Amino acid sequence: MLWALDQTQLPDREVELELRDAASVAAAISRLAIRGAPLIGVAGGYGLAMELAHDPRPQRARSAAEQLSGARPTAVNLSYAVNRVLKAALVVAPGELAAAALAEARRIHETELAASAAIARHGAEHLGPEVRRVLTHCNTGALAAPGSGTALGVVEELRQRGWLEGVLATETRPLLQGARLTAWELGRLAIPHEVIVDAAAPGLMAAGAADAVIVGCDRVAANGDVANKVGTYMLALGARAAGIPFVVAGPTSTIDLECPSGEAITIEQRVPDEVRALRGQTVTPPGTPVRNPAFDVTPADLISALVTERGVAAPVNAQTIRSLTGRP
Amino acid sequence: MLWALDQTQLPDREVELELRDAASVAAAISRLAIRGAPLIGVAGGYGLAMELAHDPRPQRARSAAEQLSGARPTAVNLSYAVNRVLKAALVVAPGELAAAALAEARRIHETELAASAAIARHGAEHLGPEVRRVLTHCNTGALAAPGSGTALGVVEELRQRGWLEGVLATETRPLLQGARLTAWELGRLAIPHEVIVDAAAPGLMAAGAADAVIVGCDRVAANGDVANKVGTYMLALGARAAGIPFVVAGPTSTIDLECPSGEAITIEQRVPDEVRALRGQTVTPPGTPVRNPAFDVTPADLISALVTERGVAAPVNAQTIRSLTGRP
Repeated sequence: MLWALDQTQLPDREVELELRDAASVAAAISRLAIRGAPLIGVAGGYGLAMELAHDPRPQRARSAAEQLSGARPTAVNLSYAVNRVLKAALVVAPGELAAAALAEARRIHETELAASAAIARHGAEHLGPEVRRVLTHCNTGALAAPGSGTALGVVEELRQRGWLEGVLATETRPLLQGARLTAWELGRLAIPHEVIVDAAAPGLMAAGAADAVIVGCDRVAANGDVANKVGTYMLALGARAAGIPFVVAGPTSTIDLECPSGEAITIEQRVPDEVRALRGQTVTPPGTPVRNPAFDVTPADLISALVTERGVAAPVNAQTIRSLTGRP
Repeated sequence: MLWALDQTQLPDREVELELRDAASVAAAISRLAIRGAPLIGVAGGYGLAMELAHDPRPQRARSAAEQLSGARPTAVNLSYAVNRVLKAALVVAPGELAAAALAEARRIHETELAASAAIARHGAEHLGPEVRRVLTHCNTGALAAPGSGTALGVVEELRQRGWLEGVLATETRPLLQGARLTAWELGRLAIPHEVIVDAAAPGLMAAGAADAVIVGCDRVAANGDVANKVGTYMLALGARAAGIPFVVAGPTSTIDLECPSGEAITIEQRVPDEVRALRGQTVTPPGTPVRNPAFDVTPADLISALVTERGVAAPVNAQTIRSLTGRP
């Protein structure tokens, strides 16, 4: 059994979901009840392991893995973790398949926990004590990744070191992960923060309101291009124009060396109703046509640094990315 | 009596306000029931004229003018129109004061009507037949300006000439003038359109989804810097990166030669609840701190052209701006 906070209900209600199989985990990931690139990887791994506890057949393992990996197409962590659990299950004797899957899912979980702590440390050291006011996007904290998160884990570390004065958090339309989740997490951590509409960020940067931008990532291509929550590219343009660092944080499991560049990344298009309505409140005329890409691509040359659990790539390019992954 | 559509109720309900004096007009402008830089100028002029029909004393004229001009600080059209009506009233004999004010308010209205038509024509000719897909921001149509509007008037003209394929309209947080008002107007005009979240615009431009960006303006400084709805600067950065034109449209009454540059423009800060809640639906944890600038400044060097009723300034700089105003 996997218990997960239903993130669609935050901050109004803290509702726990009880998930028992691959289908329920895939559904929770698809509707963003569980979200955040590292967290959906861990949840996907447990989803496959739970499924195999019920039905430990190799063909079931393959179809459940496919269902889970397809729940969201852009973050690579999901298919990465599911494939790791699948491979671990398929190399053992049939009687050990379920146990092997669960053991691999736990290893992924522990690895991501350790990665969060290391990212926070490397990120804080990279930014240094001069960075007092940080702008961040979407939600990248303990709700998005095991442990303290990726970009928001760095923010928490800056705070613990006494360097941070405050955070500007974008609301992150359409699903308001910033306004709902990051504001909720920063409030619980007692970190001073202000929520802004997304489009206000570049103007505030130009006016000197932030010393750095730090965001998470859903997929890092081999050349360092990054797919992340829609609006990330706009923040990178704003940071470049304002002359402040634009830092991306994520575990190396987010790096996809099979993907040559941002152009090759599938951008998930989500349903129009996310834009037409907001938490049940309609905003457009009925049936208004909508285009709703969930992600965008930020080219590597706009990214000052990529912070991972293995260290920092700066500048971000094919060579520095490859050396982080430890593959020749 | 002035009748105005309450724009805060659109697109759900078409409610007409009956306004009788300066206080009610100022309140309608302040809460954005009447909005759009050219329209609040015209409404402000009529507001002062109506006040003087009740109470035609010079001291009343001065205090009502101050109340109206202060309803919103960023758009220069409001104080420009109110001051024109005030001056017209104060130079005549006391018995003619009310009639003179109304006549001047009507002249401003007629001037802005003619300006909308001329802006549409100049804008369409400037963009030309190659611009098939236009991205726009906020609402700049018939709800924002007498006649067909500014930027959206250009869009309508492109459509009438058979050049336009479609429009990408940003939703325009926090008050959703794009999702509510531009989508409503484009629907009524039968112009193909899609609404997008604001932060999606630069990524869509980079992916080739728009041939040009066209927006309105709330104040143009003497050097060509433009204050407009928050998010305009982000769109200008996106257009520059994508190599597509970024065009600003507005009447010359929006040019403020007294204002040397964008740094001198007062940016209206609006209440936190506009960001904390959306049409009555709360989105953040209760009491979350918010920063809510209503406008931002786009530097002249990111603007391809300024389209006015007197013609087009391209490039946009102190010299081309001054020559548009006809002042030496």
